[in-house]
Amino acid sequence: MAVYTDVAADELADFLKAYDIGELLSYKGIAEGVENSNYLLHTTAGSFFLTLYEKRVAVDDLPFFLGLMGHLATHGIVCPQPVKARNGEALGCLAGRPAAIIDFLEGVWPRKPNVTHCAAVGAALAKLHLAGRDFPMRRANALSVSSWRPLFEQATPCIDTVQHGLHDFLKAELDHLERHWPQNLPAGVIHADLFPDNVLFLGDRLSGLIDFYFACNDFFAYDVAICLNAWCFEPDHSFNVTKARALLGAYNRERALSEAEQAALPLLARGAALRFLLTRLVDFLNVPAGALVKPKDPLEYVRKLRFQQSVGNIREYGVAASGLVA
Amino acid sequence: MAVYTDVAADELADFLKAYDIGELLSYKGIAEGVENSNYLLHTTAGSFFLTLYEKRVAVDDLPFFLGLMGHLATHGIVCPQPVKARNGEALGCLAGRPAAIIDFLEGVWPRKPNVTHCAAVGAALAKLHLAGRDFPMRRANALSVSSWRPLFEQATPCIDTVQHGLHDFLKAELDHLERHWPQNLPAGVIHADLFPDNVLFLGDRLSGLIDFYFACNDFFAYDVAICLNAWCFEPDHSFNVTKARALLGAYNRERALSEAEQAALPLLARGAALRFLLTRLVDFLNVPAGALVKPKDPLEYVRKLRFQQSVGNIREYGVAASGLVA
Repeated sequence: MAVYTDVAADELADFLKAYDIGELLSYKGIAEGVENSNYLLHTTAGSFFLTLYEKRVAVDDLPFFLGLMGHLATHGIVCPQPVKARNGEALGCLAGRPAAIIDFLEGVWPRKPNVTHCAAVGAALAKLHLAGRDFPMRRANALSVSSWRPLFEQATPCIDTVQHGLHDFLKAELDHLERHWPQNLPAGVIHADLFPDNVLFLGDRLSGLIDFYFACNDFFAYDVAICLNAWCFEPDHSFNVTKARALLGAYNRERALSEAEQAALPLLARGAALRFLLTRLVDFLNVPAGALVKPKDPLEYVRKLRFQQSVGNIREYGVAASGLVA
Repeated sequence: MAVYTDVAADELADFLKAYDIGELLSYKGIAEGVENSNYLLHTTAGSFFLTLYEKRVAVDDLPFFLGLMGHLATHGIVCPQPVKARNGEALGCLAGRPAAIIDFLEGVWPRKPNVTHCAAVGAALAKLHLAGRDFPMRRANALSVSSWRPLFEQATPCIDTVQHGLHDFLKAELDHLERHWPQNLPAGVIHADLFPDNVLFLGDRLSGLIDFYFACNDFFAYDVAICLNAWCFEPDHSFNVTKARALLGAYNRERALSEAEQAALPLLARGAALRFLLTRLVDFLNVPAGALVKPKDPLEYVRKLRFQQSVGNIREYGVAASGLVA
């Protein structure tokens, strides 16, 4: 939770003159998102989201993210649509930062996801993969397998202070994943961060997908694996096969997972666990002493990784593989 | 900026069932207010503010604050009105905290107050003082002159690490103010924290006063003195007599300052400067190393205090005393 950049009212009012979204009524810094400064705007035309992109987001990537949101929103995916200024540009500059206005989506993210939520996410993820197929821009996944060793090496001196033996455990896993990572699975645009706080619901109805700032081109099934880890574990770290079955089944009904994807899923889920484990570990080790922002617990993902290492076959997620084959 | 308590969607939806404010559409933690957790709610009935009162606010004081807002809102002051639950109570309990829903006021606070803003604040402050006269509850000012020595003593061991010689400077000022603090000025309900971030504007029109969580019974002119310090200094620490004239003149047109109040104003402004200096100093010295929340600069108020010490007479604020006498 952070608002890094304060915006003066007159500065914002000037900025908004380039848009057709009415007169500014109020704006409030939002305590969510760790990468950027976010404001909820009320104008005479409605509610909007204003994002100021801070250092951690590469400016060069913004046209991909904003273009993708625009593309998906016009291809049946409920996601925030960038609002273009009258000059046709979605990306402007405010308070010295790249800045964009996007639609504000109503909805709340589920703190305790249930089976219905998991099914809705599975279906939405598949639709997102299908809708992204004819999006013309490309962005490599900056956090895919080749990025993991540099993250591991960055954390290496301090890893065992987090948990004794963790360094060797991660090194062995990294060696294994680098050797066995698949090469030729179906790929396209993936969300790459579809955690519960990025999926909005009104009641049990999914009302929107948000936060596309990790979106990239990678294996579709890797995105599914990220969701398995993010949605199907209980607070006590147990894996809920009913949720996994709901998520995978709903995904498969919209976009059938190939046999190769199904076979690769346990390995991809290990990779997905390692990816979030490593970035959380690096963040955890770099938090200043006494900081008020609580870093996410890297050990949560150690437990998830150990579970995924134990999975030999997609059937252990609670699904009959044959039921998933189209 | 802080949201100390996360609220789950289902927990919030349950809480809202006690109110007639429609169905929850979204809620966002707001990055402002250092005392409490604040959320902006959208419901099918409109926008509302949800506050969860954290430890620093005394639960016993909440009926005064909420009652005052309700009283003022029905006496011509534009301020948030507490929304009562169907059982008639404005104060509920959510996520283990005392919690209240209040109207959301549109408007933006002026980062760079101009003369028009200062005049509007002066008039609004006087109207607030008049509107509070028949409010039946009382709350002593917990941060008036008798509280300053304990704050000073709490900071004493470290004061000179902030600025060399500051300890003796503050001690002499405290001695002086304790000896000369007035006894019998006109008193009533004051806001006690009417800084620019607590006054909302739409254009140059004042659209609301917010944050009544320091409101109390004290001298009206002390509230005026707080505003002189908060609104009439420039970023380069110079005192802008045009702004002071606008603020005092507009106040005086709504509620005439007595001769005794006018005579006391420079001393009250020294006290108001010392009060914010001391609380900022204590906060500054208690921030954990490396914390991401930037404490407010106590030295800003050292400069303001030195200016106020130099003022011998209300005329030095840019007004002819005779012009203020009713």
